[in-house]
Amino acid sequence: MTEHSALIQRRQRLLGRSYRLFYQQPLYPVKGEGVWLYEADGKRYLDAYNNVVSVGHCHPRVVEAICQQAAQLNTHTRYLHDSILDYAERLLALFPDVLNNLTLTCSGSEANDLALRIAREVTGNRIALVTRWAYHGTTSSIAELSPSLGVGVSDQVRLIDAPDTFRAPGQWLQQLRQVLDQMAAEGLRPAALMMDGLFSSDGIFSPPAAEIQQAVNWVRQAGGVYIADEVQSGFARTGDDFWGFCRYQLVPDLVTLGKPMGNGHPVAGLVARSDLLDLFGERQRYFNTFGGNPVSCCAAAAVLDVIESEHLQVNARIQGQRLGRQLNDLAQRHEVIGDIRGAGLFYGVELVKDRNSLAPATALASRVVNGMREAGVLISATGPDANVLKIRPPLVFTAEHVELLSDTLDQVLTRLS
Amino acid sequence: MTEHSALIQRRQRLLGRSYRLFYQQPLYPVKGEGVWLYEADGKRYLDAYNNVVSVGHCHPRVVEAICQQAAQLNTHTRYLHDSILDYAERLLALFPDVLNNLTLTCSGSEANDLALRIAREVTGNRIALVTRWAYHGTTSSIAELSPSLGVGVSDQVRLIDAPDTFRAPGQWLQQLRQVLDQMAAEGLRPAALMMDGLFSSDGIFSPPAAEIQQAVNWVRQAGGVYIADEVQSGFARTGDDFWGFCRYQLVPDLVTLGKPMGNGHPVAGLVARSDLLDLFGERQRYFNTFGGNPVSCCAAAAVLDVIESEHLQVNARIQGQRLGRQLNDLAQRHEVIGDIRGAGLFYGVELVKDRNSLAPATALASRVVNGMREAGVLISATGPDANVLKIRPPLVFTAEHVELLSDTLDQVLTRLS
Repeated sequence: MTEHSALIQRRQRLLGRSYRLFYQQPLYPVKGEGVWLYEADGKRYLDAYNNVVSVGHCHPRVVEAICQQAAQLNTHTRYLHDSILDYAERLLALFPDVLNNLTLTCSGSEANDLALRIAREVTGNRIALVTRWAYHGTTSSIAELSPSLGVGVSDQVRLIDAPDTFRAPGQWLQQLRQVLDQMAAEGLRPAALMMDGLFSSDGIFSPPAAEIQQAVNWVRQAGGVYIADEVQSGFARTGDDFWGFCRYQLVPDLVTLGKPMGNGHPVAGLVARSDLLDLFGERQRYFNTFGGNPVSCCAAAAVLDVIESEHLQVNARIQGQRLGRQLNDLAQRHEVIGDIRGAGLFYGVELVKDRNSLAPATALASRVVNGMREAGVLISATGPDANVLKIRPPLVFTAEHVELLSDTLDQVLTRLS
Repeated sequence: MTEHSALIQRRQRLLGRSYRLFYQQPLYPVKGEGVWLYEADGKRYLDAYNNVVSVGHCHPRVVEAICQQAAQLNTHTRYLHDSILDYAERLLALFPDVLNNLTLTCSGSEANDLALRIAREVTGNRIALVTRWAYHGTTSSIAELSPSLGVGVSDQVRLIDAPDTFRAPGQWLQQLRQVLDQMAAEGLRPAALMMDGLFSSDGIFSPPAAEIQQAVNWVRQAGGVYIADEVQSGFARTGDDFWGFCRYQLVPDLVTLGKPMGNGHPVAGLVARSDLLDLFGERQRYFNTFGGNPVSCCAAAAVLDVIESEHLQVNARIQGQRLGRQLNDLAQRHEVIGDIRGAGLFYGVELVKDRNSLAPATALASRVVNGMREAGVLISATGPDANVLKIRPPLVFTAEHVELLSDTLDQVLTRLS
């Protein structure tokens, strides 16, 4: 039994079984501010999970932008409006020159869905390559590219190993080569390789640039395009760069954006080479009723304002380095920590039963996530065995928050492992 | 050349070819209020097109709800929150009892995509039946169910005639019967019949209830479910009822919602029989990062508040009747009007070259739409021949607005036809 059983019953009755809650004791926040979530009794939680509210919960600048524009005009993109052009100009300036067109959607799923449609249209091929435990979204066609949902993979998809730098460094490339050779033997060519910049749902990996370059080269040689899914790794999350793909010194053909783009306001998008978009646009139309409306554009512009004015990319780098040092300290004292990896303010802490077998400590990871929640710090777990602690706080995390997070993790690991 | 060629060039450069504009002289609004859109020079346009801002542009109550909640908390549905439950309870009370679960998404496309996924999962069948010029959305799988996009129909789709009450009343049922018989002969069963409550993109039809009942019965007998797409016809638009499907005295298996749900804020959803959703939920998961967040729920609740407190369903009926009378008056004087049809504040005015041949007056319809825009009234055209004037104003339309609309249409038709 949980604290909020009446609410949970009401939820099941009204929303049905598909809706799942986090934590054995679900959280019931009524207010958010910066890195904090508050319950009604005033108890607060350090949010080290929500990358959507990347500039902090309810950032006043974003809220003000939304309020101001919502009171002024909110309509579709069949009329002219400055907000979408100003935003597009500013956003595209953050990309390599050839990535010069922006299409706006409401969700990362819609962005990935559109990227896949474009890839299939322009290559004439159907098959998408994704990593074995990928998550790219929830539309019918993107759920097929999200094996971590357990939907079942169709013949339009080929799974490749994630670039597992911990258990099998470099091996994924051999397996990718086999998949491409097998496809070629069957006369099949890929439409696209879609990769999350940090392989978030596969367990958070940041492989050597040369590996990703090799993979992308092979796929391009076979006729496919490279779709960089920046829904998780974009908007300064990795600290070193504004986009996750930059760490691989590559220019993608299509880039998809989502989660932190509007700090929680439903806005997402696709950045594309205009030649690909032109080819698509000649044959198909795309229009999104809510996508690119002035309120969404103003929210998204305010997020860029805050990232710039509060130097959040630098902060992600500095606090990310601090977090990395603290986590490595913990690894000295806690045998259950098998590996620590990530970039900027996105870390994976892989828990193992012991450091010889490297057997995944799945049950422990679940207990740690719940223990952290009880101790007032919100994180989650990821990877095919759900044994990788996922630490992905808002970018406004300070040194003090890093300390609180690592101290709490230290205590919880001491108590539970 | 248009007035705003620099802006248009900038748009093409930044957004690419997929983005299309309405009107030969595109509109460049900077402010919206009630039924009016304003350009920077103060010129105002009567909005008789935008069904998204159904309670009026920038309605203060909706704006306030968004601002208040955006400043308080905006996060995902993995935590407990009252707003989604309060909204679900209130919305579901507007449906027949068996439609007792709500799932929230960001767009009508996502809602239809999910409805199709559920239909396929629970029936075990793949093929969807849609009308010949349907529009249901833009995801990969729903674009396939939207022949009006010109995407090309896959083998997962069968097209049926729209219930054309003007050119071929009742005939569509024979064709549907043939399609189902042909499928049965091939050993194929339908997953779903997806229908827009007013067949908006097919040319706006409101056929006799018995016809729709017959179609739904046949599809259910063949193993498919009935998905009512209420993105266009829902939320009091039809005046007589809160939902479009009510006019057919039927209970759908799945209902999808969108456009007016948040008055422009990106919120949409799916209302379903819980037994179908349970079956789906046992096998698949669904989560939508932005879907059902507290701000979206508060916006959607405010829309219901306004519909109730301003009696907009009654207003849609009364002003719709007034509009119908005015349009029928115009038909007495203008031979080009072949047919007038619709419900509530959603009318189609079909223009024909003459009343004997009934040849579609496509070019004239385009000139009328543009002429109306020049005269300060915004409408559009629909149907496979784009010869049906689409009149679909916000529900806060008054008698005065109806007069202005019909007087302007009278003048434009007099001048152009």
